Amino acid sequence: MRAVDIIQKKREGGELDRAELAFFIDGYVAGRIPEYQVSAWLMAVFLKGMSSVEAAALTDVMLHSGKVMDLSGITGPFVDKHSTGGVGDKVSLILAPMVAACGIKVPMMSGRALGHTGGTLDKLESIPGYRTGLSEADFRAFIEQDGFAMTGQTAEIVPADKKLYALRDVTATVESIPLITASILSKKVAEGAEALVFDVKSGPGAFMKTPERAEALARSLVSTGTAMGKRIVSVITDMTEPLGLKVGNFLEVEETLDCLENAGPEDLMEVTYRLGAWMLVAGGVAKTVEEGERLCRKSIRTGIARELFMANVRRQGGQPERLLELRGNYRAKDSYEVLAPTGGFIQAIDAYKIGLAGVYLGVGRDTALDPVYPDVGFVLDKKTGAAVLAGERLATVYGKDAASLEAVKALVASAYAIGPGAPARRPLILKEISAI
Amino acid sequence: MRAVDIIQKKREGGELDRAELAFFIDGYVAGRIPEYQVSAWLMAVFLKGMSSVEAAALTDVMLHSGKVMDLSGITGPFVDKHSTGGVGDKVSLILAPMVAACGIKVPMMSGRALGHTGGTLDKLESIPGYRTGLSEADFRAFIEQDGFAMTGQTAEIVPADKKLYALRDVTATVESIPLITASILSKKVAEGAEALVFDVKSGPGAFMKTPERAEALARSLVSTGTAMGKRIVSVITDMTEPLGLKVGNFLEVEETLDCLENAGPEDLMEVTYRLGAWMLVAGGVAKTVEEGERLCRKSIRTGIARELFMANVRRQGGQPERLLELRGNYRAKDSYEVLAPTGGFIQAIDAYKIGLAGVYLGVGRDTALDPVYPDVGFVLDKKTGAAVLAGERLATVYGKDAASLEAVKALVASAYAIGPGAPARRPLILKEISAI
Repeated sequence: MRAVDIIQKKREGGELDRAELAFFIDGYVAGRIPEYQVSAWLMAVFLKGMSSVEAAALTDVMLHSGKVMDLSGITGPFVDKHSTGGVGDKVSLILAPMVAACGIKVPMMSGRALGHTGGTLDKLESIPGYRTGLSEADFRAFIEQDGFAMTGQTAEIVPADKKLYALRDVTATVESIPLITASILSKKVAEGAEALVFDVKSGPGAFMKTPERAEALARSLVSTGTAMGKRIVSVITDMTEPLGLKVGNFLEVEETLDCLENAGPEDLMEVTYRLGAWMLVAGGVAKTVEEGERLCRKSIRTGIARELFMANVRRQGGQPERLLELRGNYRAKDSYEVLAPTGGFIQAIDAYKIGLAGVYLGVGRDTALDPVYPDVGFVLDKKTGAAVLAGERLATVYGKDAASLEAVKALVASAYAIGPGAPARRPLILKEISAI
Repeated sequence: MRAVDIIQKKREGGELDRAELAFFIDGYVAGRIPEYQVSAWLMAVFLKGMSSVEAAALTDVMLHSGKVMDLSGITGPFVDKHSTGGVGDKVSLILAPMVAACGIKVPMMSGRALGHTGGTLDKLESIPGYRTGLSEADFRAFIEQDGFAMTGQTAEIVPADKKLYALRDVTATVESIPLITASILSKKVAEGAEALVFDVKSGPGAFMKTPERAEALARSLVSTGTAMGKRIVSVITDMTEPLGLKVGNFLEVEETLDCLENAGPEDLMEVTYRLGAWMLVAGGVAKTVEEGERLCRKSIRTGIARELFMANVRRQGGQPERLLELRGNYRAKDSYEVLAPTGGFIQAIDAYKIGLAGVYLGVGRDTALDPVYPDVGFVLDKKTGAAVLAGERLATVYGKDAASLEAVKALVASAYAIGPGAPARRPLILKEISAI
């Protein structure tokens, strides 16, 4: 077998089999196949695509480039959720204890903020003491004890993805549906999940900017994951404006507590309940989405979800008492208020611009080495559709320093569109693609 | 400007401008842009193509990556011919003195055998003493004195092509029309030619296996070369069976002498006269191809072309007396005769198989480091269309050793198809595309 023949086959639109993909990817990870051959292949995949069977084989090869979490000995069902990333998207933090309360085990490995989208690990680490770098033994033990655990991906999990992603980033081959699919799925399958619910975000604040692109990825995740023998659901949700009322790190932990106390914003809870319901269905705990949603609401209403969240905070080294003390008070000293320039109705709040402003403020980061700050971000007073008077406060913005506030003012102002007449309500759940 | 943006633009099918191509190619040659980015770009070019304007800009950028031959002070017109490579293709050796005799200056830089196709330099070097590594001063002086000179490409000529070609070879991006066009044209323009005639071979023995692919390359060479301000003609010629009766290195020099003495095989002379005639038209020496052909025939008939060839042999260090002594005698000791297995008419002689057998025999080479042998190859007794009796000799095969003969016997036998009835004569000149 020769690497150049594999590149040529893909260049001609051929379907690579598992042996060819294993030769190529394993060869790359082991340093036998040079980057210049891999990047030519990546571009051929980008432009020629992959079948579901082929993407499944690639995912499987990538998955086995590293460690696969062994959850044997723990009673399942193991179901996880993955979001393609958005602004104000703290759904994972609410969802994990909520579905764990319903009997689902959630082995959650999350990522960090990058670009305009936030990261679950950064949010969790804003809780004083909270550790996200769990050992495998702790990860297993915490899942067994609380029904879920939250950790970062270690270097041993899918090393092929780390190498491939870095190469895709510099060769303009990031936005390829089969490559994105294999990257996401290989990591999620490696953490030990049997069933997966994907929240594929669609809109200006998402990675997939159009409903068509979002649907293509959603379908690819379902067909590829199914070809790997997993139960998969993709839910396409709107990411036009930020989700919920708080965008930040600790700010989003606060909003998580609000939600767990049954006082969360409507849009955020609608998405959270729907995804949770699908997780229950995927795990066999509920027969229908409606039944799943009832069970999720109950676990919130009864406070069981909140209890599990607090148990997890303590289990992972965080200080629940300190968390409650900081709640409502943990704010950067530099802040300003966004005021409505005119009266009317909020027509739109551009999630992409808010997310981008967050990078300047210290919520997110430009490169993997930038620090993030716990106490910065946005508290929104009103969302799209709300009536406002001229000069009324729309939001409060907290930044790592005064300069960061100056840097974002124009950008944040331009994120708001105010006009006469209430805009039509946008649906949040755009499409559901299930293969369970 | 960022390399990744240039890759992305090409990936989306955009047209790169000269500044972008210069940034990218110059950056690659200087080591600022890594191979993995260049190979992703090469694949994007392969799959998305290039416009004529874009290919011309790429050619121009590649051309200026190295030295451009300065022929000022010598009176032109400077016209060269380039063949995309075939089996038994010794046209350059006959053509250069033939058109030089008609007043054209031919600054010919040639390549070596690679794979199943022969190389002009290897053929010339089979003449004892002949030097193909001329200094620039010698190259200029010999063109001025004899009307032509034959040399190899120095490392200073289009270094970008050497780097790009090596990378294309290992990334399955060789067979791209715009990349082939830029590779060929940049080298030919760098040698100082004002007008160029391309012999684009088509058929199993050629690089372009189908008339459609050959025509695509022929048109690309014309449109791109024209966009660079050169006068360009492409002639598509058949490469189904070997050209002429001899395939080898010294064997092809012998056949060159036959042709220059007006005793060459009909097929070889048909192609040579046609290409020569176009060179005369391209150089302004003849008004029509018919007039050009008359002048070429005259330069052969009068012996002037032969005189110039012998003058060039002496000028480049070869020994004309030794050449004539060796003629008809310079044969490897290991040989065998190919006999007709049945009677009938020769339906086909597969040029590709003969060329491939030549690699084993020592005519050509697999890798650039393999040696070639002067005294090996094929002497064909009969060509396609000839009647043969069972057991009659079809060809004599000379090899570097007995093992090489054994290795090719089945391959050579399978190259011949003999059947009842004379086959229809295949036209040799398939299409002519002129922009002069």
